[in-house]
Amino acid sequence: MNLLESIIRSITPQDYAARIAAEKRLGQLTMPHWALGRLMDLAVDLAGITRTPRPAVARKVVVIMAGDHGVTAEGVSRYPQEVTAQMVRNFMRGSAGINALARAVGARVVVVDMGVAGDLHDLAATGNIISKRLGPGTGNIGHGPAMTRLQAIRAIEAGIEVAVGLAEETDVFGIGDMGIGNTTPSAAIAVAFTGASAAAITGRGTGIDDKQWRAKVAVVARALEINRPDAHDPLDVLAKVGGFEIGGIAGVILGAAARRKPVLLDGFISTAAAMIAHQLCPVAKDYMIAAHRSAESGHGIMLEYLGLKPLLDLNLRLGEGTGAALAMPLVESAARLLTDVATFAEAQVSEAKR
Amino acid sequence: MNLLESIIRSITPQDYAARIAAEKRLGQLTMPHWALGRLMDLAVDLAGITRTPRPAVARKVVVIMAGDHGVTAEGVSRYPQEVTAQMVRNFMRGSAGINALARAVGARVVVVDMGVAGDLHDLAATGNIISKRLGPGTGNIGHGPAMTRLQAIRAIEAGIEVAVGLAEETDVFGIGDMGIGNTTPSAAIAVAFTGASAAAITGRGTGIDDKQWRAKVAVVARALEINRPDAHDPLDVLAKVGGFEIGGIAGVILGAAARRKPVLLDGFISTAAAMIAHQLCPVAKDYMIAAHRSAESGHGIMLEYLGLKPLLDLNLRLGEGTGAALAMPLVESAARLLTDVATFAEAQVSEAKR
Repeated sequence: MNLLESIIRSITPQDYAARIAAEKRLGQLTMPHWALGRLMDLAVDLAGITRTPRPAVARKVVVIMAGDHGVTAEGVSRYPQEVTAQMVRNFMRGSAGINALARAVGARVVVVDMGVAGDLHDLAATGNIISKRLGPGTGNIGHGPAMTRLQAIRAIEAGIEVAVGLAEETDVFGIGDMGIGNTTPSAAIAVAFTGASAAAITGRGTGIDDKQWRAKVAVVARALEINRPDAHDPLDVLAKVGGFEIGGIAGVILGAAARRKPVLLDGFISTAAAMIAHQLCPVAKDYMIAAHRSAESGHGIMLEYLGLKPLLDLNLRLGEGTGAALAMPLVESAARLLTDVATFAEAQVSEAKR
Repeated sequence: MNLLESIIRSITPQDYAARIAAEKRLGQLTMPHWALGRLMDLAVDLAGITRTPRPAVARKVVVIMAGDHGVTAEGVSRYPQEVTAQMVRNFMRGSAGINALARAVGARVVVVDMGVAGDLHDLAATGNIISKRLGPGTGNIGHGPAMTRLQAIRAIEAGIEVAVGLAEETDVFGIGDMGIGNTTPSAAIAVAFTGASAAAITGRGTGIDDKQWRAKVAVVARALEINRPDAHDPLDVLAKVGGFEIGGIAGVILGAAARRKPVLLDGFISTAAAMIAHQLCPVAKDYMIAAHRSAESGHGIMLEYLGLKPLLDLNLRLGEGTGAALAMPLVESAARLLTDVATFAEAQVSEAKR
């Protein structure tokens, strides 16, 4: 049994007893019944995920998976492929969007090279980036498969290894992506699973115009037509129309679920990866929290398919884990309802009249 | 000229030049154009509010204004009036909902007694609560005015003094309320200003049933009928159908605006207070940020009347400043986009192709 199979087998549903205990305590807190709404729903989930009615959610990590995409040759992005490597350097210097937000919310940022086209050897030498390189970018899905089936398994296992390696020192995971062109494979994955049209799922990515958008929709449709991924075989979908970093993210989700840690999904790319993870192991959904609804069209369809309701809706479309980071204080706040708030009895506050 | 008049005169619009400078820098950051959506809009506001394209938003304070309401005699709440004082004690012990959330987001909590019915002398002696008492609760608005016009002015001035006193050590204010029965005067204020029906504005508060809700709607309608507040005279509205803590919150908003600090509105009660502040000084709106849309029906109508779009929508209906606290990391994150993120040129990242 390989790592992927053994991890999938170790993922169990949320703990029902811890959920019930949390729900009972939340119902007795010094406030009108369920007055903190979705924050209290989230607190129940955190209890179920962590197997304790008093979860600690202080140590926050955003894992950014980076990889390049052969499909950039089709002109699907406004940015040249070299930007992936440049942005990885930006992450390492601490001056990208995710660094600012991670700092604001007190989260650590971990960057993983899943297969960036540029030369990042100098960064690897510093030890500040985790190297799980599967190659200098994927194949062009407009002409053939993104990767082999073995690479797809390796990509997911790399993500599992990263999550498992961080789990001891992490209470909540956020996931993020960097990869010029990666909304195209993500759209192809979403179309493969949901059966929605390429036009309904495909968005503007980094900000393409109408003409480029029509061409991108055609590329997504062609990728599915040429590669014919089997929607009942998530490894086939990842191999045919996915990406190295997308597989890596799916692996982080599975690893976090196996270690009973909540994992905050980011936007379009992260959710495509979540669809892979969900198809491999439906119960992994018990550990997923949708941080936000992206401005990228199609994201809402993907969240609905997974049955996840996002916490935030702020017109974000950056990726990098920025939406996941922004939702982390909500997760920490939810957990603190269970650890920091007194019940009516404890605080000697009069209860509601009948 | 009294304090209220002089503070109102000192409130000026957001600084246009700082907004433009912020907008320009945000447009050059290493990300697709405006890819962080509403967070970037918020960053522009913060620049305009603080008069600098690089605002610091690290020091966060939630001011909770507490006061009692004579209208509780009409049975408008599920909780007895004594709960107001009990909850103030809960705040001081650090074990209420707002304490948990303030801790999660790194905010300080300041409690102000604007006129709680119970005896809080022992707390006042500890120096941990600010006493601005205007009496042991307001008059019953179902039968007559809540307070005198002079008390209305004093309530607002008390809030101004609190905000001005804290301003030197505060980058962002959150406002909160505690007062059993205070959704009733808040609804009356909203009806007076918006002209909407009492039934459209009045909600379930702490969780009343259908029969109690119909009685509460009737109380709101009667309060307006008996007191006939002049919607063009916000001091008259506050005096006739308001509350001490509602006046105090309006004062905190005006004081924060005068000191050029952003102020996060909480839910239904805070927004009623914001309507008073706005009517007294329309430009004060430049300093208001709507933290969330409350589950309390009518809140959406009030936000729309003010032209404010909430950041969060999490089915909250607690008050205490909890929604304001939850939105503080978003404000801090927005500010950090201007201080922590590199531009394409600074980071040597390739820009989008034309």
